[in-house]
Amino acid sequence: MITHADVLAAQQRIAGRIRRTPVFDAAPGVLFKLEYVQHTGSFKARGALNNVLAAHERGALGPAGVIAASGGNAGLAVAWAAAQVGVPAEIHVPANAPAVKVKRLQALGATVVQTGTEYSHALAASAERATQTGAFPCHAYDQPEMVAGAGTIALELAEQADVDTVLVAVGGGGLVGGIAAAFEGTGVRVVAVEPAAAPSLHAALEHGGPVDVEVGGYAADSLGARRAGALAYAVAARTQMVSVLVDDVAIRDARQQLWDEWRIVVEPGAAAAYAGLTAAAYRAASGERVAVILCGANTDPSDLA
Amino acid sequence: MITHADVLAAQQRIAGRIRRTPVFDAAPGVLFKLEYVQHTGSFKARGALNNVLAAHERGALGPAGVIAASGGNAGLAVAWAAAQVGVPAEIHVPANAPAVKVKRLQALGATVVQTGTEYSHALAASAERATQTGAFPCHAYDQPEMVAGAGTIALELAEQADVDTVLVAVGGGGLVGGIAAAFEGTGVRVVAVEPAAAPSLHAALEHGGPVDVEVGGYAADSLGARRAGALAYAVAARTQMVSVLVDDVAIRDARQQLWDEWRIVVEPGAAAAYAGLTAAAYRAASGERVAVILCGANTDPSDLA
Repeated sequence: MITHADVLAAQQRIAGRIRRTPVFDAAPGVLFKLEYVQHTGSFKARGALNNVLAAHERGALGPAGVIAASGGNAGLAVAWAAAQVGVPAEIHVPANAPAVKVKRLQALGATVVQTGTEYSHALAASAERATQTGAFPCHAYDQPEMVAGAGTIALELAEQADVDTVLVAVGGGGLVGGIAAAFEGTGVRVVAVEPAAAPSLHAALEHGGPVDVEVGGYAADSLGARRAGALAYAVAARTQMVSVLVDDVAIRDARQQLWDEWRIVVEPGAAAAYAGLTAAAYRAASGERVAVILCGANTDPSDLA
Repeated sequence: MITHADVLAAQQRIAGRIRRTPVFDAAPGVLFKLEYVQHTGSFKARGALNNVLAAHERGALGPAGVIAASGGNAGLAVAWAAAQVGVPAEIHVPANAPAVKVKRLQALGATVVQTGTEYSHALAASAERATQTGAFPCHAYDQPEMVAGAGTIALELAEQADVDTVLVAVGGGGLVGGIAAAFEGTGVRVVAVEPAAAPSLHAALEHGGPVDVEVGGYAADSLGARRAGALAYAVAARTQMVSVLVDDVAIRDARQQLWDEWRIVVEPGAAAAYAGLTAAAYRAASGERVAVILCGANTDPSDLA
């Protein structure tokens, strides 16, 4: 169970090693949290650093360091966090992972292992390697320190601005779970925004627990988790979180609008949070102050011009 | 002569109609002012709005509204400001101006007139039209309200952060002139950063007054003014401003680094300010807090991926 206290502990643990990301009053009643300027280009750096530091503190890191399966934001963040703590990182990705992603991981000092043709193959290979080498396995989202670390965005935001509502994009739910835990009991409403094409938390809330869903669509690259994390689901259920769905056209339009109006580039997954507002999936009341977490920008901006 | 008082008056005039742009502690001792999120994608919106509002206040706007010659940031800003005040804008550009720029101006409600093959032809045509129609001519940089409006960035920055030094890119010098006037007497050092390929203010300071220079290079699109403005030169001379030069490779690298490290997209002209730091054209002392004004992002981000 992830609580406000866990997020506070994470904040103290990662203090001074994480960027304090700006907030921007973009329009009347709409505030953006520019988390995409974070180390490695996404919020995942917070959770990964918290995860690796906590493992280090409790003596869980052997000579093999840490291991993860992800060619995306989580992999970059784990590779970066390991380098910060000074331990090795082994990152497993499918053999068909784009060369640019492999190079980025290597540039952060990670050893990259390519196996199979799907993420599930890389995950299986990493789990097997972890038992062989004793490396500490970092999950992309469903691990207490990942969720609590992501939640530090909320504590930072609360210091920077008064808001009524926070819109958060959901893949596996680590970010929204951490943020909801951080705001629990404060009266700030946390709204999960999910692609209709990848509704993991929405399905979990409907079914009373995480279930596998079909995933695809424009934002699948970062929000394509097949199943909501158990930790995030628990927070969502306990805080009676509302989840709204947005379609791919809305996400694409929101991403383009962020560029056209404010020269902000984000990845589709981050644009989904803003789509919650532009597509009126979430309707703010008059005078309501809504914060939108722009959580990542690991994207090719070529199509925005 | 532009003074701190002029900048204060501009701030009061445009208050509530201009975006308060975020500051970001990007690295130890280095702060970015994210001015590129401003209306129309550059700082020019501040000066243009101040200019049009001031003209409106003193009854200088007839039925023909305002007129300007610029297919770039100044033209967009004047078109936007005119729409804000509710008066017509006629913007002159060369006949070979890119269609995307013409469309953007039209989308802001401006009438676009295309004449000749060079900026100087469009400028001449706009001056002639102004005498015929009585439209109020807005200069791209060398007009008191443009300079004072640009300087409001400095007042905002001073409210947001304590800094020792501010790096500002220079085209015609309107931005650096306004910022230096705003900081005059405060002890904050304002450093002009100019492309070696377009050194208008550098040459003016050397010659004891504005002179024509050859202009070209990577940042010429936004920093390619042939001659520093007289108003900006006066502030620079009176405040004993230091101007440093950066070459095109440094500007290009700085622009790429802003994307790679922080997922920030800016136009070459804005990257020049940061190049002042990365190319060590300006060397900060230990413990010095340097703010870099990232002043515009009207650029195609395709080459950054």
